[in-house]
Amino acid sequence: MRAVRLSEYGKLPSIGEVPEPELTGPWDVIVDVGAAGLCRTDLHIIEGQWEPIQHPTLPYTLGHENAGWVRAVGSAVTNVVPGDAVIMHPLTSCGLCLACRVGQDSHCENALFPGINTDGGMAQQMRTNARAVVKLAPGIEPKKVAALADAGLTAYHAVRKASDTLFPGTHAVVIGAGGLGHIGIQSLLAITSAEITVIDRSEPALELALALKAHHTILFTDPEDVLAQVLDITSGGAHVVFDFVGEEGAEQLAPRLLRNRGSHYVIGYGGQLNNLTIDIISREINVVGNLVGSYHDLVELMTLTAQNRVKLHTVDYPLDAAVDAISDLANGHVVGRAILVP
Amino acid sequence: MRAVRLSEYGKLPSIGEVPEPELTGPWDVIVDVGAAGLCRTDLHIIEGQWEPIQHPTLPYTLGHENAGWVRAVGSAVTNVVPGDAVIMHPLTSCGLCLACRVGQDSHCENALFPGINTDGGMAQQMRTNARAVVKLAPGIEPKKVAALADAGLTAYHAVRKASDTLFPGTHAVVIGAGGLGHIGIQSLLAITSAEITVIDRSEPALELALALKAHHTILFTDPEDVLAQVLDITSGGAHVVFDFVGEEGAEQLAPRLLRNRGSHYVIGYGGQLNNLTIDIISREINVVGNLVGSYHDLVELMTLTAQNRVKLHTVDYPLDAAVDAISDLANGHVVGRAILVP
Amino acid sequence: MRAVRLSEYGKLPSIGEVPEPELTGPWDVIVDVGAAGLCRTDLHIIEGQWEPIQHPTLPYTLGHENAGWVRAVGSAVTNVVPGDAVIMHPLTSCGLCLACRVGQDSHCENALFPGINTDGGMAQQMRTNARAVVKLAPGIEPKKVAALADAGLTAYHAVRKASDTLFPGTHAVVIGAGGLGHIGIQSLLAITSAEITVIDRSEPALELALALKAHHTILFTDPEDVLAQVLDITSGGAHVVFDFVGEEGAEQLAPRLLRNRGSHYVIGYGGQLNNLTIDIISREINVVGNLVGSYHDLVELMTLTAQNRVKLHTVDYPLDAAVDAISDLANGHVVGRAILVP
Amino acid sequence: MRAVRLSEYGKLPSIGEVPEPELTGPWDVIVDVGAAGLCRTDLHIIEGQWEPIQHPTLPYTLGHENAGWVRAVGSAVTNVVPGDAVIMHPLTSCGLCLACRVGQDSHCENALFPGINTDGGMAQQMRTNARAVVKLAPGIEPKKVAALADAGLTAYHAVRKASDTLFPGTHAVVIGAGGLGHIGIQSLLAITSAEITVIDRSEPALELALALKAHHTILFTDPEDVLAQVLDITSGGAHVVFDFVGEEGAEQLAPRLLRNRGSHYVIGYGGQLNNLTIDIISREINVVGNLVGSYHDLVELMTLTAQNRVKLHTVDYPLDAAVDAISDLANGHVVGRAILVP
Repeated sequence: MRAVRLSEYGKLPSIGEVPEPELTGPWDVIVDVGAAGLCRTDLHIIEGQWEPIQHPTLPYTLGHENAGWVRAVGSAVTNVVPGDAVIMHPLTSCGLCLACRVGQDSHCENALFPGINTDGGMAQQMRTNARAVVKLAPGIEPKKVAALADAGLTAYHAVRKASDTLFPGTHAVVIGAGGLGHIGIQSLLAITSAEITVIDRSEPALELALALKAHHTILFTDPEDVLAQVLDITSGGAHVVFDFVGEEGAEQLAPRLLRNRGSHYVIGYGGQLNNLTIDIISREINVVGNLVGSYHDLVELMTLTAQNRVKLHTVDYPLDAAVDAISDLANGHVVGRAILVP
Repeated sequence: MRAVRLSEYGKLPSIGEVPEPELTGPWDVIVDVGAAGLCRTDLHIIEGQWEPIQHPTLPYTLGHENAGWVRAVGSAVTNVVPGDAVIMHPLTSCGLCLACRVGQDSHCENALFPGINTDGGMAQQMRTNARAVVKLAPGIEPKKVAALADAGLTAYHAVRKASDTLFPGTHAVVIGAGGLGHIGIQSLLAITSAEITVIDRSEPALELALALKAHHTILFTDPEDVLAQVLDITSGGAHVVFDFVGEEGAEQLAPRLLRNRGSHYVIGYGGQLNNLTIDIISREINVVGNLVGSYHDLVELMTLTAQNRVKLHTVDYPLDAAVDAISDLANGHVVGRAILVP
Repeated sequence: MRAVRLSEYGKLPSIGEVPEPELTGPWDVIVDVGAAGLCRTDLHIIEGQWEPIQHPTLPYTLGHENAGWVRAVGSAVTNVVPGDAVIMHPLTSCGLCLACRVGQDSHCENALFPGINTDGGMAQQMRTNARAVVKLAPGIEPKKVAALADAGLTAYHAVRKASDTLFPGTHAVVIGAGGLGHIGIQSLLAITSAEITVIDRSEPALELALALKAHHTILFTDPEDVLAQVLDITSGGAHVVFDFVGEEGAEQLAPRLLRNRGSHYVIGYGGQLNNLTIDIISREINVVGNLVGSYHDLVELMTLTAQNRVKLHTVDYPLDAAVDAISDLANGHVVGRAILVP
Repeated sequence: MRAVRLSEYGKLPSIGEVPEPELTGPWDVIVDVGAAGLCRTDLHIIEGQWEPIQHPTLPYTLGHENAGWVRAVGSAVTNVVPGDAVIMHPLTSCGLCLACRVGQDSHCENALFPGINTDGGMAQQMRTNARAVVKLAPGIEPKKVAALADAGLTAYHAVRKASDTLFPGTHAVVIGAGGLGHIGIQSLLAITSAEITVIDRSEPALELALALKAHHTILFTDPEDVLAQVLDITSGGAHVVFDFVGEEGAEQLAPRLLRNRGSHYVIGYGGQLNNLTIDIISREINVVGNLVGSYHDLVELMTLTAQNRVKLHTVDYPLDAAVDAISDLANGHVVGRAILVP
């Protein structure tokens, strides 16, 4: 079958023929890939940034945001049958470790992460397991949702964790209205009643935010100006700041945008915190980490998608055009999310 | 009456005569002070560190950890009568702002903070209000509990916030077993079922921790050694680290001691965080600020005191020996908490 | 001033002249009434049902759902000034008891309940206190919101308590789409993402529910038929049933509509539970009581009103036509909520 | 192998030879039984009460509270190896349904319940699955803990659910200090800081409660007397009543023992609620169902056992003396829990 293979860090992957994956255990599931999302993490993988953390064996197949149709199932699989349309949670969790037992499967101690540390979904087929597959509602095509499997899930997860505190009269500030942020905005509108202010350096991103029904937008030029506007709109600071950037100053601006008892949700990464501990305690503010999301988060996100309350803007590329897609993404020529379709 | 007055930053306060406080509003309460705790914050006030934050008008009376007996009450006060033994919440909250209305009175928008920004309790009498006074159980003497009004409350508040996550099998790590930390340890034992590991640079502090029934102690010399011991004792990291130091490296060691999804509770202050955002997200860890505690926290802490489950070690000084007490504290000659008794 | 006075149980109240209320304490607030809601509880009061619970001294002025403009304030009142448009929380809470201190002011140990156990708002003026008044957003008229002060607050409070569990994919079932229920439906849509099924014996009530964007409606004729439809719509039972009726069989049908781990929120009253304990435990279901709401709940509800997300349908009567309004309500001739306007 | 077989409802089971269980799927685990608890549910099974709910195929092997040593594991089992000492969660959950995915495995849609609807542990060996086994800490013998697998787990689960609300100053009332209740008392002391009042009709049960360090006991003779004593001890009612009886009047007394906003935790069963809905709403009280517990609850309970904070009082019988044990239990001659040891 055809697959997008990374053979050497620092070089573009190539499209080639590899053997089809096979069932190797009772909980394995083989999927005919319907679409695989392409994201900035793929660029970072190609650059080698994830090698020290995940050290996959090269060459391997990229693609960590995947959806498709079940092709074959292991002997113990009871939740899907061949032909089912599915989206795949990024991790093949074990169901046995304590994290799995309390529903925190994204912290599974025994999971593989296809596309990150083993063969992923930029291919005609991929192997996952029974605990990773979420059946799609009738009428939902895999390629419509593939990019929600990781980026969308991460954004939803952060909003979901904060949702208990985002009631009428509260203010959520979103920094970054890109791939994750625009799902975050839709999730905030769907499951909270907070007033939403979106900050971005890009005018078109802010236009998208308004089109999605965000309540306020602020063009990020000068941090002091952003701060002044946020304090004004929120009457003294946000209850929650969702930082989808996490670098280039966003991570240091974010806590300044909070009111007392507010929380800075870190989702994007690359930068470094520099909060003084006296600032942390005198305002009793929090910093909250966010990583992917649980299987159940993905089930909820698929419900919102089926209800048409969360939508992705995507651009299709044939699988064989993966290198073009990667170049377009690297050069900022992709509007919305790039999707590879086998 | 006699009072400990601060007249100039950088100079020791003096003991002198000042007029007795009077009732000025319907919710005012005048208290005959039974004892006022002396703490490092008083040293910082004298140095002038709090001037830019609280800018009190000098001269004023120190003392922000107070207990005593009600002497007089305003026309609208219904919860105490003259003669009642009381401990005072550090803030005179308003009961009208939104923070007050949800029980977060330590974030009251209209509060005074006696001893910090208005006359405090290092005097024969002080003025507070009806919403600050907690009646003591029969048999509890004001001087036994005065130092719990701020330091103890802060430690209890942090433990109380974390308590929902500290169930059998979890690990709490306490950095700093001093004035706050030794209340934190007792609070952890009283209201959680976590296994407790205490880290301190002082052998006697660790001996106290063991005497209080902490499960493990680690002498803080080399951070790498502390890290290795904590990872071993906790099988992979703490669920919660209570950082009662917040400076001198503790604030940077703390997040390294966490397991995935763990939380770093910042209580002490003086230092600066330097977490990489990729570390925050890849382990999904949190930083949680803590400030004083609510009125209800203080009620709970007084219950634990009445049940003999939380005890302070104190050293009494007559009010007129306040300068000696301050010198002893500054020179590290106070074992336990210094208490000024009028 | 004019007021609607109840002089004897079992007889209609009369409209007459009474002295204007006066400030009697530092936290008192006198309000020029803008409107007072009339509800079935007023009918029950007239019948004498509340006498054994609240035993007011007759004659007294009815009206427990009130909004208006501040006329005068006591010496300690800082949160409103004469002229402010306000809605009144039904209870004049004390701000000192433990319930008040944790934000549960509807369980205040020292509150009066104007219109229920002391003079209420069916008059030109009424007395309340500083802790009961919520300022209205600019442009919100008192008569638009008066009936939210009790009925709306109760419905919102129940939804708010359940909201943490009502995420995408969950099912809320509402029994009764009348005065409380139609606020409940709007609240569910505003602050949860549950799918909503509404059950009522009245076709027009179900039409209103659909107009408000409820997802499904069921005409309540045969309980077995309702059960079958609910199990079908919800794929096995509701996560939460909001029972705004609480009598006439609704309270016994409600638990049958639940799935495992579901909760029956009791809001209406008059009937009696008859759950077998084996049913409670084998399905691990809950029964949850709901009473009015907190001050903060009312603040949130006013925010939703200002955002145009919750709207009341009202019919105005002049204060002097109170008896007509009462008769119309008793005879089922009021569509929406009756409002008395002085 | 030897096994206790139920062949006909209404007749005592017999001990006979049956084939050893075999691995039939990849997640199966065969256990050499170390001990099987005997409880009143076994008596109810024999009487036929559970037939309509669970309809097992007769004859089958009783025993739903089991611990032992792993004998063999299926091909996909990675969490235990032969020789491991384990206690077994009563349900063989699937790990795939939504209840399992959020950690609510006791509501698994696909579980078997050995001893209830398939062959259980009153035998030399039994079959369970990988998701049911919890490894015991070194030094913990299976027969010391077997009876915690169901009865103890149920008691712990109820306490654990309530624990967030049981802080210093709160009152927990325990009705029934028998097999479940005495674990409940120990759990309350281990993980909450509530003051505990125990009610029982048996003097020895109350003596055990006091020996376990319950704070107050009340002999249950007259309900009105119990009510008066509880209101006095608790200053107005319990925050939580744990009803381990659920019949014979306990279920109707329980809500009367609550203060406003209190919760009646139903654990025992057999009776029927008769709360008026006006009582539910006017006091805003709750009824909370409780069923077994989750796998993680059992892990926590085993931690408490390893820490010596929860202990069972047991009486051993050889497996072949099962009928004697059943007779002794039925006749009230078992003090503590009866354990069958193969």
